[in-house]
Amino acid sequence: MGLTVSGEFDFIDWLRAQQTPSDLVQLGAGDDLAVLRWASEDLLIVGVDQVLDGVHFDSTVHTPRQIGRKVMNRNLSDCAAMACLPAAAVATVALPKGSSIEFAKELYLGLRDAADPFDCAIVGGDTATWTGHLVLTVTILGRSAGVAPITRGRAKVGDGIYVTGPLGGSILGRHMTFEPRVLLGRQLGESGLVTSMIDISDGLSRDLSHICEESRVGAILQESQVPIHDDARKLSERDGVHPLLHALNDGEDHELLFTASSEPNLDASLLQPIRIGTITDGNKMYLDRGGNRLMLIEPRGWEHSL
Amino acid sequence: MGLTVSGEFDFIDWLRAQQTPSDLVQLGAGDDLAVLRWASEDLLIVGVDQVLDGVHFDSTVHTPRQIGRKVMNRNLSDCAAMACLPAAAVATVALPKGSSIEFAKELYLGLRDAADPFDCAIVGGDTATWTGHLVLTVTILGRSAGVAPITRGRAKVGDGIYVTGPLGGSILGRHMTFEPRVLLGRQLGESGLVTSMIDISDGLSRDLSHICEESRVGAILQESQVPIHDDARKLSERDGVHPLLHALNDGEDHELLFTASSEPNLDASLLQPIRIGTITDGNKMYLDRGGNRLMLIEPRGWEHSL
Repeated sequence: MGLTVSGEFDFIDWLRAQQTPSDLVQLGAGDDLAVLRWASEDLLIVGVDQVLDGVHFDSTVHTPRQIGRKVMNRNLSDCAAMACLPAAAVATVALPKGSSIEFAKELYLGLRDAADPFDCAIVGGDTATWTGHLVLTVTILGRSAGVAPITRGRAKVGDGIYVTGPLGGSILGRHMTFEPRVLLGRQLGESGLVTSMIDISDGLSRDLSHICEESRVGAILQESQVPIHDDARKLSERDGVHPLLHALNDGEDHELLFTASSEPNLDASLLQPIRIGTITDGNKMYLDRGGNRLMLIEPRGWEHSL
Repeated sequence: MGLTVSGEFDFIDWLRAQQTPSDLVQLGAGDDLAVLRWASEDLLIVGVDQVLDGVHFDSTVHTPRQIGRKVMNRNLSDCAAMACLPAAAVATVALPKGSSIEFAKELYLGLRDAADPFDCAIVGGDTATWTGHLVLTVTILGRSAGVAPITRGRAKVGDGIYVTGPLGGSILGRHMTFEPRVLLGRQLGESGLVTSMIDISDGLSRDLSHICEESRVGAILQESQVPIHDDARKLSERDGVHPLLHALNDGEDHELLFTASSEPNLDASLLQPIRIGTITDGNKMYLDRGGNRLMLIEPRGWEHSL
């Protein structure tokens, strides 16, 4: 526990009262651990993500509700990239000393804002206070629910390369407000045409390099096809960096990047993927303009600072 | 990702090379999420715990190996308290900027030191650097493996109250070096006699109050039976607090506290539990000396500072 905020046990009682019933949950938060009934036909897909004050958010600018949403949405976006359904989550919060119970509740409600639309139950957690800055983590448990998880490792030469939306400049605000592409990821998985998938967290160039490395392939992107977000253009006006470079190298878009043997037909109600290139042999990534290799794309890590 | 330590990708390659094969793991760390095959007969028992620099350890005193061990052992101790078998874990590390790759590797090896004896696979994680202090979290997935999880909520009037070892003064060092009572927890679960169980993380008085509240019962502890650790006596010499109060109120012993309808017979090779009292009706906890109520025990939270 370790929480020494005044009103600690009020907060814990409040948390327990927030739990919504779920078929999955035999015993929810409040014991040493939670107990879930995992369906025998479901693969268990698991991972964890953290957000740190000054790196992934700025507690002097962003509300606790936004911060809670972001860390949960990052995990839901990982589920989208695996084509699995979010099922349950546990969270930790390291609160700066002097934080109010109201602040802690808002963090939790932010987690719930993001998780509830997917019936993803928050089944446990740990809250502590310290003299350090705010840290949140969420561990997500997803279930395959009849769709084989899509990895990064099965892109084939000739596959199309697609993204689910315009890229770049998320630092202007979208990095806090993106919507995880869970339903889209499921439909892509169900199509049977998708050979590899990842969500764009580090940036298109870096995340495409992950697919290329794991699949032992190369890639050509068409300069004219890479969708550039208006935020990338706005940012370009400020910093002089070409909008395309923002689209290639900025992180935290959280659109899906995938490869497919042919274009999947998706529900008209969903975002339609945009083809941006083709998987090639070799192990390099190029940007193409009208059939000419314009430049070698270097994987650039996500290094923006707030 | 967000890790910007020089040598980031060397570290990630190193981490991936460390993974040991496991029947459970269909796809290990390195993709968006890991994929596990969960046996249909197993309940999934899940929880998370964090350790913070200056609260749960002191990075100027403790080695990264010790810190890694501690956070994993805290989670394994939760598994012990539920009588489940640790199966898999994911971890996060928030590293202070300027930390060396060697330091990060030692943290990971500490996790492994603790997890490996129980074949608990580390299947994913997230590493980031920031200007803040060191934070580690571990999420543990346990499996019931034929033993019903033991909760805090089924202690009955007349049950004996037991602990698995002497208590108090863990701050002198044992809080970093305790051994999680996983095998003992399993045997207690298998006995069919244990009605409730918890690991002593907040302190005997607080953790017993959790059992009493969840089970809607009271308790009497026998003053002469509460086993006092030598560390509690040493600490008493320094701070003048009675060793018994250290045994009652200090945290992070990580012995098991349980109630049972009669004393379980355990393998002679295991620690033998010590009976310290009896569950009563009502909702209060008393300390008894020779049949007289010596005092009302107040639940005291774990509030030590390093």
